[in-house]
Amino acid sequence: MEIAILLFDELTALDAVGPYEVLSRLPGASVSFVAAQPGPQRTENRMLALHADLALEQVVSPEIVVIPGGIGTRSLLADRQILDWIRRVHSTSLWTTSVCTGSLLLAAAGLLDGLEATGHWLAMDTLAALGAEPVSRRIVQQGKIITGAGVSAGIDMALRLAAKVAGPEWAQAIQLGIEYDPQPPFVGGSVGTAPPEIVELVRARANGLI
Amino acid sequence: MEIAILLFDELTALDAVGPYEVLSRLPGASVSFVAAQPGPQRTENRMLALHADLALEQVVSPEIVVIPGGIGTRSLLADRQILDWIRRVHSTSLWTTSVCTGSLLLAAAGLLDGLEATGHWLAMDTLAALGAEPVSRRIVQQGKIITGAGVSAGIDMALRLAAKVAGPEWAQAIQLGIEYDPQPPFVGGSVGTAPPEIVELVRARANGLI
Repeated sequence: MEIAILLFDELTALDAVGPYEVLSRLPGASVSFVAAQPGPQRTENRMLALHADLALEQVVSPEIVVIPGGIGTRSLLADRQILDWIRRVHSTSLWTTSVCTGSLLLAAAGLLDGLEATGHWLAMDTLAALGAEPVSRRIVQQGKIITGAGVSAGIDMALRLAAKVAGPEWAQAIQLGIEYDPQPPFVGGSVGTAPPEIVELVRARANGLI
Repeated sequence: MEIAILLFDELTALDAVGPYEVLSRLPGASVSFVAAQPGPQRTENRMLALHADLALEQVVSPEIVVIPGGIGTRSLLADRQILDWIRRVHSTSLWTTSVCTGSLLLAAAGLLDGLEATGHWLAMDTLAALGAEPVSRRIVQQGKIITGAGVSAGIDMALRLAAKVAGPEWAQAIQLGIEYDPQPPFVGGSVGTAPPEIVELVRARANGLI
């Protein structure tokens, strides 16, 4: 099972690493990290670099494609090389997925025209402007395209995908393997459940960070 | 707030990236990735490299220390350079933390002697052999030391730490910022709740991967 995860400068690391940690445990999984320029790709805060081993042209027909988000997506919305690659791998993929603002890239590539999709709650208007129909759900599937909500949603998205690809027993084993028995300290990890003052706090602070 | 995350060869990426994604959003956070040999550090499956920017001797007095796990911890259990560094930074840290089998390194450094600690459920015997008192909880605090259970527990651990360091409102804003409203597809993300056949499946397959 060939899995390709796109990296780029100013990405959000957990968007990529959450799905990686799950999907790399699929039977026969081979995960490649791919970028326009192979080498270290820095997160939006410059504090961490994830290494892309392969260039776009070296990744031709992965079965699963994962597009993470991050403020770096914005400068790629008109990047012909990236969008062409997304369209090309999507044409033969079994599953094309995104996490957080990665869905903006799928939309910019024309893959979400008129389709329901999700992404980070702060980016829903942009998602709509790019032709998708934003839905406030954690995971949205339309055919072979699965979009996930913000950052941490990639773990849930990938576990569901694992169940589709390898069956529920294997997916459950992966969940136990990564000991995913989440105990968030607060209610309110979504915009629908958070207190309004926390929502406003995040909105004010976000300032183009997602 | 200076935060140091140790990297090493054959680490588990989410152990490091989960806490990073939370702690990097603390007010004034500066996260450094540090390793015995700076440069790319590969995960246990070789599929991903995280970049360590700093050498051990360049990171002297971080306020928060995070030790991730992975099968690579085993060859570090008698690594004087790593264990000395852990002891040294712990002597001035405000918080010393671990995720997954990172607690084995804290124990090997002598920090957990006679203290309650947690880690990946498959490594509890090793943790006991190294002098700690294993506890089957997702997060265990003893003074300024906080240990987390396997892999994904680092997110929960870091959010709790964020609340201690910056207050609950800020931590809640971080939780909403990374949209941490987990929806695991299965019950049974812990060894206490998983069906016995899934536990045995993971035990058989784990084969030294955590």
